[in-house]
Amino acid sequence: MEEKHMALKTPQQFLETLRDNRVVYCDGERVPDVTKHPILKITNDWVAMDYVMSNDPKYRDLLTDVDADGDRVAFALQPQRTRDDLLRLREVVKLWARATFGKPSGAKFVAKDGLNAVTVVSRRVDKKYGTRYAANVEAYRKLLQKNDLAFAMGLTDVKGDRGLRPSQQVQHKDFYMRIVEEKPEGIIVSGAKAHISQVAACNEVLIAPCHAMREDDKAYAVAFGIPVNTKGITMISTEPEVHPGFDLLDHPITGSVYINDALITFENVFVPNERIFLKGEWEFAGDMAVMFANFHRLSAETYKAVELELVVGATALMAEYNGIEKKAHVRDKLTWLTMYAEMIETLGQAAVEHCIKEEDSDLVYPNPMIANICKYQFADNWHTATKYLQDIAGGIVATAPSAKDFFNPETRPLIEKYLAGRAGVSTEARLRMIKLVKDIGSSYEDVLTIHAEGSLEAQKLSIFQLADFDRYKAAAMRAAQIKNKKQHPLFANLPEFPPKL
Amino acid sequence: MEEKHMALKTPQQFLETLRDNRVVYCDGERVPDVTKHPILKITNDWVAMDYVMSNDPKYRDLLTDVDADGDRVAFALQPQRTRDDLLRLREVVKLWARATFGKPSGAKFVAKDGLNAVTVVSRRVDKKYGTRYAANVEAYRKLLQKNDLAFAMGLTDVKGDRGLRPSQQVQHKDFYMRIVEEKPEGIIVSGAKAHISQVAACNEVLIAPCHAMREDDKAYAVAFGIPVNTKGITMISTEPEVHPGFDLLDHPITGSVYINDALITFENVFVPNERIFLKGEWEFAGDMAVMFANFHRLSAETYKAVELELVVGATALMAEYNGIEKKAHVRDKLTWLTMYAEMIETLGQAAVEHCIKEEDSDLVYPNPMIANICKYQFADNWHTATKYLQDIAGGIVATAPSAKDFFNPETRPLIEKYLAGRAGVSTEARLRMIKLVKDIGSSYEDVLTIHAEGSLEAQKLSIFQLADFDRYKAAAMRAAQIKNKKQHPLFANLPEFPPKL
Amino acid sequence: MEEKHMALKTPQQFLETLRDNRVVYCDGERVPDVTKHPILKITNDWVAMDYVMSNDPKYRDLLTDVDADGDRVAFALQPQRTRDDLLRLREVVKLWARATFGKPSGAKFVAKDGLNAVTVVSRRVDKKYGTRYAANVEAYRKLLQKNDLAFAMGLTDVKGDRGLRPSQQVQHKDFYMRIVEEKPEGIIVSGAKAHISQVAACNEVLIAPCHAMREDDKAYAVAFGIPVNTKGITMISTEPEVHPGFDLLDHPITGSVYINDALITFENVFVPNERIFLKGEWEFAGDMAVMFANFHRLSAETYKAVELELVVGATALMAEYNGIEKKAHVRDKLTWLTMYAEMIETLGQAAVEHCIKEEDSDLVYPNPMIANICKYQFADNWHTATKYLQDIAGGIVATAPSAKDFFNPETRPLIEKYLAGRAGVSTEARLRMIKLVKDIGSSYEDVLTIHAEGSLEAQKLSIFQLADFDRYKAAAMRAAQIKNKKQHPLFANLPEFPPKL
Amino acid sequence: MEEKHMALKTPQQFLETLRDNRVVYCDGERVPDVTKHPILKITNDWVAMDYVMSNDPKYRDLLTDVDADGDRVAFALQPQRTRDDLLRLREVVKLWARATFGKPSGAKFVAKDGLNAVTVVSRRVDKKYGTRYAANVEAYRKLLQKNDLAFAMGLTDVKGDRGLRPSQQVQHKDFYMRIVEEKPEGIIVSGAKAHISQVAACNEVLIAPCHAMREDDKAYAVAFGIPVNTKGITMISTEPEVHPGFDLLDHPITGSVYINDALITFENVFVPNERIFLKGEWEFAGDMAVMFANFHRLSAETYKAVELELVVGATALMAEYNGIEKKAHVRDKLTWLTMYAEMIETLGQAAVEHCIKEEDSDLVYPNPMIANICKYQFADNWHTATKYLQDIAGGIVATAPSAKDFFNPETRPLIEKYLAGRAGVSTEARLRMIKLVKDIGSSYEDVLTIHAEGSLEAQKLSIFQLADFDRYKAAAMRAAQIKNKKQHPLFANLPEFPPKL
Repeated sequence: MEEKHMALKTPQQFLETLRDNRVVYCDGERVPDVTKHPILKITNDWVAMDYVMSNDPKYRDLLTDVDADGDRVAFALQPQRTRDDLLRLREVVKLWARATFGKPSGAKFVAKDGLNAVTVVSRRVDKKYGTRYAANVEAYRKLLQKNDLAFAMGLTDVKGDRGLRPSQQVQHKDFYMRIVEEKPEGIIVSGAKAHISQVAACNEVLIAPCHAMREDDKAYAVAFGIPVNTKGITMISTEPEVHPGFDLLDHPITGSVYINDALITFENVFVPNERIFLKGEWEFAGDMAVMFANFHRLSAETYKAVELELVVGATALMAEYNGIEKKAHVRDKLTWLTMYAEMIETLGQAAVEHCIKEEDSDLVYPNPMIANICKYQFADNWHTATKYLQDIAGGIVATAPSAKDFFNPETRPLIEKYLAGRAGVSTEARLRMIKLVKDIGSSYEDVLTIHAEGSLEAQKLSIFQLADFDRYKAAAMRAAQIKNKKQHPLFANLPEFPPKL
Repeated sequence: MEEKHMALKTPQQFLETLRDNRVVYCDGERVPDVTKHPILKITNDWVAMDYVMSNDPKYRDLLTDVDADGDRVAFALQPQRTRDDLLRLREVVKLWARATFGKPSGAKFVAKDGLNAVTVVSRRVDKKYGTRYAANVEAYRKLLQKNDLAFAMGLTDVKGDRGLRPSQQVQHKDFYMRIVEEKPEGIIVSGAKAHISQVAACNEVLIAPCHAMREDDKAYAVAFGIPVNTKGITMISTEPEVHPGFDLLDHPITGSVYINDALITFENVFVPNERIFLKGEWEFAGDMAVMFANFHRLSAETYKAVELELVVGATALMAEYNGIEKKAHVRDKLTWLTMYAEMIETLGQAAVEHCIKEEDSDLVYPNPMIANICKYQFADNWHTATKYLQDIAGGIVATAPSAKDFFNPETRPLIEKYLAGRAGVSTEARLRMIKLVKDIGSSYEDVLTIHAEGSLEAQKLSIFQLADFDRYKAAAMRAAQIKNKKQHPLFANLPEFPPKL
Repeated sequence: MEEKHMALKTPQQFLETLRDNRVVYCDGERVPDVTKHPILKITNDWVAMDYVMSNDPKYRDLLTDVDADGDRVAFALQPQRTRDDLLRLREVVKLWARATFGKPSGAKFVAKDGLNAVTVVSRRVDKKYGTRYAANVEAYRKLLQKNDLAFAMGLTDVKGDRGLRPSQQVQHKDFYMRIVEEKPEGIIVSGAKAHISQVAACNEVLIAPCHAMREDDKAYAVAFGIPVNTKGITMISTEPEVHPGFDLLDHPITGSVYINDALITFENVFVPNERIFLKGEWEFAGDMAVMFANFHRLSAETYKAVELELVVGATALMAEYNGIEKKAHVRDKLTWLTMYAEMIETLGQAAVEHCIKEEDSDLVYPNPMIANICKYQFADNWHTATKYLQDIAGGIVATAPSAKDFFNPETRPLIEKYLAGRAGVSTEARLRMIKLVKDIGSSYEDVLTIHAEGSLEAQKLSIFQLADFDRYKAAAMRAAQIKNKKQHPLFANLPEFPPKL
Repeated sequence: MEEKHMALKTPQQFLETLRDNRVVYCDGERVPDVTKHPILKITNDWVAMDYVMSNDPKYRDLLTDVDADGDRVAFALQPQRTRDDLLRLREVVKLWARATFGKPSGAKFVAKDGLNAVTVVSRRVDKKYGTRYAANVEAYRKLLQKNDLAFAMGLTDVKGDRGLRPSQQVQHKDFYMRIVEEKPEGIIVSGAKAHISQVAACNEVLIAPCHAMREDDKAYAVAFGIPVNTKGITMISTEPEVHPGFDLLDHPITGSVYINDALITFENVFVPNERIFLKGEWEFAGDMAVMFANFHRLSAETYKAVELELVVGATALMAEYNGIEKKAHVRDKLTWLTMYAEMIETLGQAAVEHCIKEEDSDLVYPNPMIANICKYQFADNWHTATKYLQDIAGGIVATAPSAKDFFNPETRPLIEKYLAGRAGVSTEARLRMIKLVKDIGSSYEDVLTIHAEGSLEAQKLSIFQLADFDRYKAAAMRAAQIKNKKQHPLFANLPEFPPKL
């Protein structure tokens, strides 16, 4: 297909779209213009990297496609239909992640997986109830593509008491997004979604239920897409890790990637009919969450492997800068870290190579067993990885002076002299690496590692449910010489053993 | 290719070949005929399963090929030249492993990887020195194929003091296989190889160095293939786990799979020229060991995943038989075990899917980084797996009476009554599973897990050597804003971040 | 108190008492005289070591006391009333354990803790119901002391379906020991106890419930002491690890310590009133189990630390024998093993040093929180310890020939030559150590480690129940500046922080 | 002894002493008066808590003694001579730690252990060389006591290339504190010490070598005590975790305990003779470091157990606030955390209860084997503890808005509504606990845990060196029936086993 029209926005065009009177708070203040805010700007620029790279001839072929109309659009917003599409998507995510220090720029990174989820589930609902959600979804996808919009995924409800279902909550009824009122031209919703990555730097937010519902919870079975500047929507930013005037040397990651997983609240917000993808069909709420997870695992697992490159690299460099890279315990830890990084890469890749064709659509997604194992291993081992990194980097990670001291001519000579490591390495390089190590081991990273893309317990539940116990039991029964009534195809026809010879 | 001739042996024909006056000792006695010995028979029958299955029409297409001469020969002895060949080989190994309780019948299982190793290295030596080893290897491969021989791999020397090289050893000079004398028509060798799986139930043994040598160690750089009944060869069996008269109920694995990793000693054994594959070219000794490991990893990793099916299955069944399968800690352990089993399967598969084309031959082998990680994870987690299995199975694994008590009409009613588990499960099934658990947790299995196919430290060394530290460091330096003189292709052209917008 | 009479038996006198027509089965056969049986003799001799040492002047002062009557009796059968008594008891157990390869000779080792448990609980029952069980217990203690009897503890019922309580069991009603009938002069009981260490080499068995009962389970609340040769009692031995004719070189532990944790079954056995310690008072069934555990933890934790000496020592020696003791990974593993051993020793000692005075008696027992942690750490780390040991010892642990081959003059020279390790170490010493390593890593040891003295989950439950959450929460609330309504004494009066200065 | 005079300072008096023209930098600026600085004030107030409590009648008896002159002085500055002294010192440290959120106020907390170290070593040096250092130390101790001074410990040199010794360093010679020049009345020193806790809020700093030296490194064998406002001393503060205007809700720990482990540099600083404790006697440099560690372990291990109270409490409360405290995985993690906390408490206590009498002085210190195990277990398990805490607390730890948003009336209602947890818990309490969890998991805490009081590798080295391998080997040789030439007293006289009966 020949390119006729450029649907892609430039970074500047994108940033301009954020000046739309959205209601955003940050660190105690209402922000009149997010493009002018010293901290929110970090998020904006990071999200804008999507546009920087899409417009870069070096990456255009990987990152964009020309669609059926001849418009150049983001590949990430295309439906992925083949294993090769998924392999390409992995390359896209890796590029994003390598460009921005392990955390892919988020213009479409998370929500594209939500878009695929509503694509699948809307067809199922339409099939059962004769609704027209699938057409709404398709129109929404077009809108996003043709305008190259940045959009966020609003999945996780604030939940209140985790021991109670949505309709059982005590203090109020809005702990999960719900339909407050139905009107001819649309619905009124209230509720809040938490941890919504980069939402204040996006144009749209896509809302879907975060877990299965029962009939009582019908009002909570709701999905839609909506501009973030819609009346009634308030976004309250995550407490920033850095303060105005910070130096990037001190905060190499927290100062360049402020994901701003904001709290987004909806107080009686109107959603027009054409933007609705689910409205009370409670049996399908769980499908939304499951399908989002299925698709999102590719994104999650791909960037994590890239993030780990950086962790192994920081450890290797700190060892060298400190002059201890040949010590046996250091090599042992570097080996473990390499294994961790390459295992995550391999499992992420294998999940895609053994992908699953979704039945109700023409979409594909990574193998859930492998993908869940990949995520679990990543999250479960992270704290050990930071322990090793911190062990090798040294106590100075906790005690180094600030960049301002380093750049202060009164103290710089002392710091240059005394915080030097091995000869041949500049003190500045060592100090920069020390600060990177500090950022890698932050509470924020730890928590992100465990909770983003589902907790450890969620992965364990999935793995248990996907386990092929019939096969495992058949193997054990054969070895124990126990007759198995439930013959398993892999074992049913095997010759007798020990043989009669 | 149409089949003209059947090179394959029947199990009975194979067993007959073992009556060749080989010198085998077992449990303190010289065994006059290994086919008549109550314990060695276990090994023979297990090895014979290769012949049982190759002759079975259900498996023939998978296990055998018709060669260029129109002879039907074992696929395992064919050189594997493509990724598809390796994928098929995995299927072969899985079938073998499922048939014989997780431990593939060993007629060709190990030594085929040694055959590939000498195939590769002989070409390298010939290229450098104009020797004719490659032709010897090809002739040897033919011989094995056309006669459907069982052969063992003699790699690991007995080593004496591990802190000393072969030529430095103090007590005597034969801790590593060595050339004692060169003669016109061949060489005289002495030495011993340890842990030689099923060698006393094989026709041939293939000998190669187990690690790199220096020039001083020249006499130890020797490789050849030889019939095990050659004069001067003595095989001393591993202490058997079972005794004559044992009941399979008590020893479901140890009573059906006696691998008999014997000590094979060579006292001035003559090896004719045409059977020699390396003779003093010490620079190539290390290649032999490395190449064997490269090829053997496929075999090793494939059967381990199958073995783990059995471990997970035994745990799941013991939980059910005891009535505790719904307890949270039991589900947690089953989840962990499933993850372990599926992770090994995935990594083993991925190693093959990302296989490496060997340069000096047309052979392929699994990706060494992935394969080493797979092996390490398998071995490192095994003891945790048995802990979980034993925890769920209960103390009865250590204290159950013997099968003879169960089959004794005086005690059987008491055992039937009191060792019953949950209703609906026969006491016999529970007792069989208990005994299987005991066998799985044996010292033998533990040690095999750690040491077969290279120790944990060996895997760690490989992973460290294969690590792509340049890539890792480039990622860390980019994030820390340190200029990297050694530009890395994946990071060299990335746009500036944070961007100037 | 001056010694007037020697209540202690000699080893020979003790062995003679075992010829009492007890009904014992072993490996499929009824054993007419346990003192003549080649395998049961192992247990008898091991139990007899208690008598060997008590009669040895070197150990008499530690192991025995002169009682109020002037009789010399076993200290272990005395009630322990002070911290110093417990410290002495630890020394007793350590001596026993060091003498017999880590596993204390069992004449009184386990059941003394049961005796203390029934001492405590009988008083509670008498107090509530006016029964006379305490007097029965005291008389029983006298009997044991004055006759220096060996007695076993029958605690663990066979349990059937672990998901059901005693009275709910489906197949039959005897999965837990129960009162079948009450008679004027006593009771008739049926049931079975599993894993009853050394019972077939004891004179008596003490029976008590293994967990709490409800009112429905009243018939199962029963405790008593009885000679093992009582009519209706059958003991079915654990499947032996060794066979007649075995060599101690091959089986240094399994051939010298056959604990024989037999299944003991009761089919309508009569128990006279004066031997009954609980009869239907179901509210006290749980106390029996808890109190047994409280007392038994001293025994358990003390011998485990001694057992670990042996494990660390075997690892250190194998490293030396193999010539690898200076390798960094070997030192690292030896350090870990030392830490493991010394941590268990320290925790066991601390539990005793911070012992608890039992309220209803004058007895003391180890601090349950510390003792549970000690046991958990021992059991949870065991499999890692054997992994390290096996890693360092080498594959030869799985593949070494038998002692019979070593002692066969035909094969001995080959084994002497080829299985030698570093110069200066005899091949025999190396082979003996290899076989010790094999025994340490056996399935039997693994399972014993996890299940003897309560499973991992049992320890976890105790620790959770004993946790001082009020203190922990008070600390967190203070730091988070949250007002704590439930003021905790350690935090209530602390000065304000940060201070107003 | 009756109190005649109050040597103790009030908090206000103490703060006043800090206005002494010391050269302190913080975040890029020279601080003219540390008592007026918004961030350094955090450290000052925290250090002042020592004075707050010493002057509090509730704690006076525990925290202070009346000395031989009738002066009331800090108990921490008294030499500890008995086990009871150490037990009391543990109570002191626990009180300090509980008052200030797990991190004991540092007026004397660290340096008292250095004072004990120089006390011991000065006597050794005097004995060998006839120097008079011990008298200097005693005078210094008097000075500290009588003036109730706050003093810091300057142990860790900046080290440069860790692979090189002090005199081998390449870039310059001052990577370790060294004697630049000797003068009649004293010495001139240059160098820098890193991670010097609270030094900028102390009166004095005690300098000692951080590891053993060789003869070449003679100039680096130097110890002395000196006021921090001495000419030539510069203190460069650790980069602060909080910024002026921060809210304590957001930073409950980092906002109340800024340990400020500063870099303290010495550029040609003069030290008068009477303040010198070591001057070139290089053989004793290592003793200083070892003795400091021996004494300091009590302090370190005691506060860590208190710190863990807080960690377990925060986990338990987050579980309750979220409504998940009954879930099996949550209870499992709480159990693990309790075990971790109580194990550290028990090991720390046991180290003191089994303390060692130092030979060259009348001082006592904790058992080094136990103390090293305690520290290792604390540090090695910390990251797992934070993983569990973060897992239970939820993603909100990474994404919560700032206190300023909570206190902003525009956003507070939304936050109150949507960040509520279970009914009955205020949103503010939940938010406070969330922020506490964030602080606990910070990079700072992680690194402190690993590196303060010696790294993991340092503990491992100590444990290996202290291991009683002779005992371990004797146990293994007895079990393996190997004759042990090096008879060990615990095993030498044991009776033969198995016995001949």
